[in-house]
Amino acid sequence: MEVSKKMLRIAIVGATGIVGQQAIVSLIGHPWFKITKLVASERSAGKKYIEALKDANGSSRWWCTEELPDNIAKMVVEEAASFDAKSVDIIFSTMDAGAAKELEPKYAKTTPVISTASAFRYEDDTPILVGGVNMDHAALLAVQQKNRRWKGFVSPKPNCTIAGLVVSLKPIQELFGVKQVVMTSLQAMSGAGRTPGLSVMDMTENVIPYIAGEEPKVETEPQKILGKFTGNNIRHAPFGITATCTRVPVLDGHIVCAFVQTEKPCSPEQVKKAMVNFGKDFVDLELPSSPAHLIDVTDDPFRPQPRMDRDKGGGMTVTVGRIRKDPIIENGIKYVCLAHNTKLGAAKGALQTAEYLVKNYLKLVK
Amino acid sequence: MEVSKKMLRIAIVGATGIVGQQAIVSLIGHPWFKITKLVASERSAGKKYIEALKDANGSSRWWCTEELPDNIAKMVVEEAASFDAKSVDIIFSTMDAGAAKELEPKYAKTTPVISTASAFRYEDDTPILVGGVNMDHAALLAVQQKNRRWKGFVSPKPNCTIAGLVVSLKPIQELFGVKQVVMTSLQAMSGAGRTPGLSVMDMTENVIPYIAGEEPKVETEPQKILGKFTGNNIRHAPFGITATCTRVPVLDGHIVCAFVQTEKPCSPEQVKKAMVNFGKDFVDLELPSSPAHLIDVTDDPFRPQPRMDRDKGGGMTVTVGRIRKDPIIENGIKYVCLAHNTKLGAAKGALQTAEYLVKNYLKLVK
Amino acid sequence: MEVSKKMLRIAIVGATGIVGQQAIVSLIGHPWFKITKLVASERSAGKKYIEALKDANGSSRWWCTEELPDNIAKMVVEEAASFDAKSVDIIFSTMDAGAAKELEPKYAKTTPVISTASAFRYEDDTPILVGGVNMDHAALLAVQQKNRRWKGFVSPKPNCTIAGLVVSLKPIQELFGVKQVVMTSLQAMSGAGRTPGLSVMDMTENVIPYIAGEEPKVETEPQKILGKFTGNNIRHAPFGITATCTRVPVLDGHIVCAFVQTEKPCSPEQVKKAMVNFGKDFVDLELPSSPAHLIDVTDDPFRPQPRMDRDKGGGMTVTVGRIRKDPIIENGIKYVCLAHNTKLGAAKGALQTAEYLVKNYLKLVK
Amino acid sequence: MEVSKKMLRIAIVGATGIVGQQAIVSLIGHPWFKITKLVASERSAGKKYIEALKDANGSSRWWCTEELPDNIAKMVVEEAASFDAKSVDIIFSTMDAGAAKELEPKYAKTTPVISTASAFRYEDDTPILVGGVNMDHAALLAVQQKNRRWKGFVSPKPNCTIAGLVVSLKPIQELFGVKQVVMTSLQAMSGAGRTPGLSVMDMTENVIPYIAGEEPKVETEPQKILGKFTGNNIRHAPFGITATCTRVPVLDGHIVCAFVQTEKPCSPEQVKKAMVNFGKDFVDLELPSSPAHLIDVTDDPFRPQPRMDRDKGGGMTVTVGRIRKDPIIENGIKYVCLAHNTKLGAAKGALQTAEYLVKNYLKLVK
Repeated sequence: MEVSKKMLRIAIVGATGIVGQQAIVSLIGHPWFKITKLVASERSAGKKYIEALKDANGSSRWWCTEELPDNIAKMVVEEAASFDAKSVDIIFSTMDAGAAKELEPKYAKTTPVISTASAFRYEDDTPILVGGVNMDHAALLAVQQKNRRWKGFVSPKPNCTIAGLVVSLKPIQELFGVKQVVMTSLQAMSGAGRTPGLSVMDMTENVIPYIAGEEPKVETEPQKILGKFTGNNIRHAPFGITATCTRVPVLDGHIVCAFVQTEKPCSPEQVKKAMVNFGKDFVDLELPSSPAHLIDVTDDPFRPQPRMDRDKGGGMTVTVGRIRKDPIIENGIKYVCLAHNTKLGAAKGALQTAEYLVKNYLKLVK
Repeated sequence: MEVSKKMLRIAIVGATGIVGQQAIVSLIGHPWFKITKLVASERSAGKKYIEALKDANGSSRWWCTEELPDNIAKMVVEEAASFDAKSVDIIFSTMDAGAAKELEPKYAKTTPVISTASAFRYEDDTPILVGGVNMDHAALLAVQQKNRRWKGFVSPKPNCTIAGLVVSLKPIQELFGVKQVVMTSLQAMSGAGRTPGLSVMDMTENVIPYIAGEEPKVETEPQKILGKFTGNNIRHAPFGITATCTRVPVLDGHIVCAFVQTEKPCSPEQVKKAMVNFGKDFVDLELPSSPAHLIDVTDDPFRPQPRMDRDKGGGMTVTVGRIRKDPIIENGIKYVCLAHNTKLGAAKGALQTAEYLVKNYLKLVK
Repeated sequence: MEVSKKMLRIAIVGATGIVGQQAIVSLIGHPWFKITKLVASERSAGKKYIEALKDANGSSRWWCTEELPDNIAKMVVEEAASFDAKSVDIIFSTMDAGAAKELEPKYAKTTPVISTASAFRYEDDTPILVGGVNMDHAALLAVQQKNRRWKGFVSPKPNCTIAGLVVSLKPIQELFGVKQVVMTSLQAMSGAGRTPGLSVMDMTENVIPYIAGEEPKVETEPQKILGKFTGNNIRHAPFGITATCTRVPVLDGHIVCAFVQTEKPCSPEQVKKAMVNFGKDFVDLELPSSPAHLIDVTDDPFRPQPRMDRDKGGGMTVTVGRIRKDPIIENGIKYVCLAHNTKLGAAKGALQTAEYLVKNYLKLVK
Repeated sequence: MEVSKKMLRIAIVGATGIVGQQAIVSLIGHPWFKITKLVASERSAGKKYIEALKDANGSSRWWCTEELPDNIAKMVVEEAASFDAKSVDIIFSTMDAGAAKELEPKYAKTTPVISTASAFRYEDDTPILVGGVNMDHAALLAVQQKNRRWKGFVSPKPNCTIAGLVVSLKPIQELFGVKQVVMTSLQAMSGAGRTPGLSVMDMTENVIPYIAGEEPKVETEPQKILGKFTGNNIRHAPFGITATCTRVPVLDGHIVCAFVQTEKPCSPEQVKKAMVNFGKDFVDLELPSSPAHLIDVTDDPFRPQPRMDRDKGGGMTVTVGRIRKDPIIENGIKYVCLAHNTKLGAAKGALQTAEYLVKNYLKLVK
């Protein structure tokens, strides 16, 4: 397919939510994709998008600092339940897990669905694609299509907390093997959503040491993402992860403090080099949403910091710092890893996957 | 000694600093101790305390929310370098490590010094006493006195980050043995001091994943504190700790996310029970600064939270939550532990030690 | 009535909400009042209070840092709609305005109702009592009782934003007359309530320059509170107020930056003196919730600060600073005023009113 | 001068400070200006810029989230005291007031100096230029040159707090006249600088109701900026301002809550229209740093908000909201105004002035 000849038509489903908004922002000025449909729940359907965004006080719930483009503002929102998936080339689904479970299979009968929801992540015939990490898993989508007799497919993004971690683990796995990961996450507040999101009375100069439902995802998704595609399914990578996930008073940017035990001995310098060199091939594909470097390794011990580093590479670069030898774990390396949870970890990461699938792998368009 | 008969005379050295101020606040209305001297650097010496606190704009640098008592406000500050240690019964030293290294030995020739500085922590003949955890180590102070031909002694408090951790580890050690600890700390900003302390431009909705000099202390002090007193010195406990220490936008209260491997198998319920039962004997001593419970175990998965739980037991109770079986570490238990870094972890913790030494162990007063 | 002989029985209506919780905390250890009933909406009725506080995750919604007393935790919550008002001596109503409008009159048929809601504030036969400011207005409650044929009454507290302002204006009014007030408020986030309260995504390092419905209250209540009781109603004080009310990232403590034009000339020194001397008679009543000083005037130009000064006098002292001559307004004085919005401005302020009414004015108890 | 033919050579004096860094960022990719010299104090002189930025821990003090361009990083810093002003076409001085007072006159002997310091603001022969507001005052620079026998000049930017206010006042002044302004500012923390800037212990969930030295500037600069150029000097506008300036926990973006009394009656709608229409001529000059609109008027009552609106127009658009009739002031209008203090109010505002002077007024280059 020559994407330059024809802009692909995109629908954003869940368009009024914060992730939907971020998907819109990610697509402003996109060279290949053009938003032609905005889709949301019954409450918003039939209204102009800008009207659908208004709350009871008449205040706009457009939450991005980027300005809402005029042409998007004026689009009339369609209803998710009755949306005609064939009217677009690709669907970005940003619905919550419940709605996704019901509607994404309907859409996928005819149309590729790139999803930020977790509904399909744990299905055996569904890959969790992460840009530059496991592109060969995309072939599993053909298995999914065959299994389910879909012309489209559902391709979900990973949990936002491990989106950065798996990028940092991949070069370690390739060169030294990963045996075990102990990790604590310090997660940003935007991860809890926006309506209303977390209460200031909970998060002001405070930490909440628990995020409901998070640790089970964090402890299992990386092994699938870093697993081996067998032609028919994915053999999960045979390492264990134990995690404590906490919420900290940061707007955007999830930090993971990782203690990694490798199969083979490795030095911090070797790990650094592996990370710095990682992902060149993927970057060379020149996908519009890809950064110049998948991983930026910093030597400044005080970095990465969420507010200072999260927007590197347009929010698509993972920053790793404090790589050092573990004093007690055999073949142990510890480091700190930061990724933008609502860019790499959500809408923009999903967009990058769509770009990859369009350019390199599947025939997306009928 | 019958402490009820006579109030012991206390000097606060480093009285204008934030830890000195907190020491003053801890001693307001104390039944045994009475501040009779305030001591600080040359700059403050000779001034009334309230005058010494004024900055260049005439604004008061009294940083505690508790009101400064009138009688303290009017005391004339003496100079640390020339202070006559014999004029008091106990010295609370809150100087920085450099000044402490020089002056504490001078004071200790004649007078017991309870110190919040790290200067003496790593000396072989010096215990790091933590209330309820290692009271038998107090006997090492007699060795110190003999070695150094001091009539007094120097008794330092532990690093504030592990002050709570060791309280939580002690009952585990006693019942199941500790083999290994992997931990990430989320430390409060007050730990960085007050003049000026951390910059808002660094800490606003941000995390700093490094605290200079912290991890080496965190990775070595617990083994000494939880070590065995041999009659002459302390045999360090034979487990390893690996730590990543981070700074988060919280005013007070250090969180430690701990992954503990025990020697013997144990269930979360057993660990909980051990923690709940811990420290009864110590509490029964009824030291004025002791809380009703050394450890409070919460079943609420969203706790402990720094802002909500740090002041429990007057800031002297450690709150432990999220005790659960580790999914991958053999004999692994993980939990989250919170302690007030400027109370249990600093002035008030040191005060409790002084109370113990006065009541139960050493003849403090000439 | 001799309050010492018999503890008055108190019901907290709206007991599960944040203001109800603060009312409970204010009454812990109270020498005259004893909570005998907890009342809330149908959802909570019939449950033990501690159970009624649990959210869907089993996490406790007890939001105060003070510990929930055991005897309160075990009380069974009654339903507001069917609550028998005669079963207690005084009702603290912390319901929202809608429920208050409906239920407070029912309760007031038999029982005094002290209310934190705005439902009755603007009724002609209802005073807005503020401790030490307009105690003579309490006589209007007798008019209310007569008008409405109630044995009890409804006595509402003022809007939390002007609770401190009117305390600061009263001594100015008495000595120099108030002609006009221009004010900007910087209001704390707790004023927006707790379930869920403001979103972190709105309030993190941000200001919201509008609080729905606030300015009309702020621009009219003070004239009533500072008005003259005529024996039958209140003649509002004849000055105007113009206000801009903003929300700032502070937990507790509302700041008002006031520009006051007086009738007669006055110097900052005279205003300071008037404020310092204000309220001695009221303080001498020794009501349990009264502070030692109604107003604390600070000379430190960097004060008052919410976090440092809000808890002065148990949260019942108003702190005024930066009193200075206005450079352009004739007879103009400008200053900054701080009051604790959830103590003086809510539950504890209402409690103080109840104490006054019990001790000094009305026969509250049948 | 045809700026397209030749890039003008720019020196940043004070290059290591935060304002200097922001000046560098503002100039990245600039079509007319090219940084050829970085100048700083003796401490940094002779080092590569990237080395000069390192602190004692080896951590970089490059505080902007924008990446430091490689070519800038490698430039060797020159010393301010001995800097040869003739080696560049324009000097951006971001020194503090003391150094500026001494060095700017030296530089100005030969070279135009655009300054963010206050050293020259109050000189009779020096305008305070604000883009779109008082461009005719630029002619006063010729008087300055003549008076002081300089070939260059010193052109200072205004105080950052009133930079936005004067933009909002100008259209009101033009159409209705300004008689009096009562204002409260809620100022961002970046205004206090960066080394170390404000302490987190002061600013966490807190407000400081005083900024040393700020109110006198705020109460006098606008009258000069909005004054009338007589050919020889500036006749200050004859209105008064009274201000209370406060610091709030916001990173960037100063809010002013203004109560404006006009000479002639005006409605909120008229004021809105005047603001919306304001500055078209200036915008049409198409200066590289100019926004599409000098003022953006919002109808959303919850706006402007610092975090959401400060970056509008690249940080150069002033956002005004909540325009409403004052309930008590005759001919009174009240509104809330927001401007980016470190962009419009500092480096980028100064840059815009330089662009104007280059393109439209003075022959800047020898």
